[in-house]
Amino acid sequence: MVEIWRGPFMESQHWGHAVVVNANGEVIESWGNPDEIILPRSSAKMLQALPLVESGAADAAGLTPEQLALACASHDGAAIHTDRVRNWLGDMGLGEDDLCCGPQLPDDRPSKKALICAGEKPCRIHNNCSGKHAGFLTLARHLGADIADYVNPDHAVQQAAKLAFEEVTGLDTPGFGIDGCSAPNFATSLSGMGRAMAAFAAAEEGRSARDSAMVRLREAMMAHPDLVAGEGRACTELMRATPGKVAVKTGAEAFFIAILPEQKLGVALKISDGSTRASECAIAAILARLGVADPSDPMVQKRLAPRILSRAGEDTGGIRPVAELWAG
Amino acid sequence: MVEIWRGPFMESQHWGHAVVVNANGEVIESWGNPDEIILPRSSAKMLQALPLVESGAADAAGLTPEQLALACASHDGAAIHTDRVRNWLGDMGLGEDDLCCGPQLPDDRPSKKALICAGEKPCRIHNNCSGKHAGFLTLARHLGADIADYVNPDHAVQQAAKLAFEEVTGLDTPGFGIDGCSAPNFATSLSGMGRAMAAFAAAEEGRSARDSAMVRLREAMMAHPDLVAGEGRACTELMRATPGKVAVKTGAEAFFIAILPEQKLGVALKISDGSTRASECAIAAILARLGVADPSDPMVQKRLAPRILSRAGEDTGGIRPVAELWAG
Repeated sequence: MVEIWRGPFMESQHWGHAVVVNANGEVIESWGNPDEIILPRSSAKMLQALPLVESGAADAAGLTPEQLALACASHDGAAIHTDRVRNWLGDMGLGEDDLCCGPQLPDDRPSKKALICAGEKPCRIHNNCSGKHAGFLTLARHLGADIADYVNPDHAVQQAAKLAFEEVTGLDTPGFGIDGCSAPNFATSLSGMGRAMAAFAAAEEGRSARDSAMVRLREAMMAHPDLVAGEGRACTELMRATPGKVAVKTGAEAFFIAILPEQKLGVALKISDGSTRASECAIAAILARLGVADPSDPMVQKRLAPRILSRAGEDTGGIRPVAELWAG
Repeated sequence: MVEIWRGPFMESQHWGHAVVVNANGEVIESWGNPDEIILPRSSAKMLQALPLVESGAADAAGLTPEQLALACASHDGAAIHTDRVRNWLGDMGLGEDDLCCGPQLPDDRPSKKALICAGEKPCRIHNNCSGKHAGFLTLARHLGADIADYVNPDHAVQQAAKLAFEEVTGLDTPGFGIDGCSAPNFATSLSGMGRAMAAFAAAEEGRSARDSAMVRLREAMMAHPDLVAGEGRACTELMRATPGKVAVKTGAEAFFIAILPEQKLGVALKISDGSTRASECAIAAILARLGVADPSDPMVQKRLAPRILSRAGEDTGGIRPVAELWAG
């Protein structure tokens, strides 16, 4: 799907699988194997957040679009993220210790530098999934369930997430893996994930509780690109480059999804080797192919055709999608 | 060649090419395509250092085994590396500005933290290739060539490196790419690179100027694993785990070589997608397969079968070589 060139040589290459699915759940375009069984990792966060909204928990807790965006986020631990999650937990009378995710050093440079140079350790709120976990806690409270063990696959919160995941992907999950944040991450097929994203894209406000929840979550993501990832990050910059046209979300091990409300299309892709440089290039190529991203936009170009420079700044090569993905 | 597992699912996988070559230059074992054209990147440093030793430049400058190890190194910018390179340049009456490589933030944590927290910028001596460049400058001086432009592909130093590279790989190079340190990196086939490593492995002191140079370089690497890479790095730890048995060297974009003097074997491998986690696992697997690395040694295990932990420390999966590479 993606080639790495240095001078006249293709030095490395990335294979993968991708699907574009329409409102009827039909795969209208695919690369690789649409039936590949995958772990969507953080690309499934808007699916994991569905019960939070559908159950009425979000309204009962008065969650704002900013908080819904954080529930779907893999944030980089900047103050705009950690302050909001800390306040969210505080509003519930909870704190960092109630999060089941482990601590993670922020990717946000200023926050990272401040912690390291102060000799301090990161906390659980810095974990890129802390917003998702605040959402889990909000749902656990609303369901009157135990909040101590909300990442247990048998817990009401995870059972609700599994049910929504299976209904929207249209498949029974073959199982789960434990994610980096300790929560179960359910497996499905690539086309199942594409179907779920198409459902988010085609959802209409008021048509059903699920449709309304999907609309609120996708709109929250598009309204707050900075909360979904962070400054300089692919999800944030690609959504800023395509205002209101697409919600994108990356997942660990080179997963990526896109929700295109105007075309009512869903996209899901997995780079087989788990390389982020390739998943970012591939999603940018597909967004350009579908006409929602302008390939000349610097924030799109940065992923679609980045140059590889030497330490001294010379142009030594570049990354580019294969012609089958986007001929340019 | 390498699989990434999370729970019951193979989440990602890495393909690649590898060869084991004997003293006669014959490929005795291979995976993938032995004829694949590759850029060996930093795995070619001992080849780029051959003219430095063969020409007599190393002896004329009184270079020590430590300096020869640094000429073959991709060091992590720790004080043990930068102090020695700075002194080496000083002995020639030269300094940082005479290096053609660009500045690079050290991978060595203490050095990196010190620079960042002091608000200082890294210099060219921190570049992981600064030892190779000090060697280039030493050769340029010895040849009476211009020292200002020694990375120019037409410069006597690079022409000498190209000639040695072609003679030892047994192939005319199809061209070069510019490396991250601004020097040309010549292309060859994977089997050509394996042949070159087998020549280093089979070389005998005194049999020829080239053989003697090969012995001095491979012995210098094995004698100073800490100078070839750095604390915690794969090359350093794999050589410490196999004292005197093998010289290994990684290269960017997932290249790896091994020189096995006792068996007179050379190994070269390339993970197609450029992933280091896979090239480190694959070389550890091949060293275990060839009987020079003990798979139960923690420093080998760390690359051969590392566990993937959640941020909270739970075991969520692992990395492992495919059975065709090493059945364990």
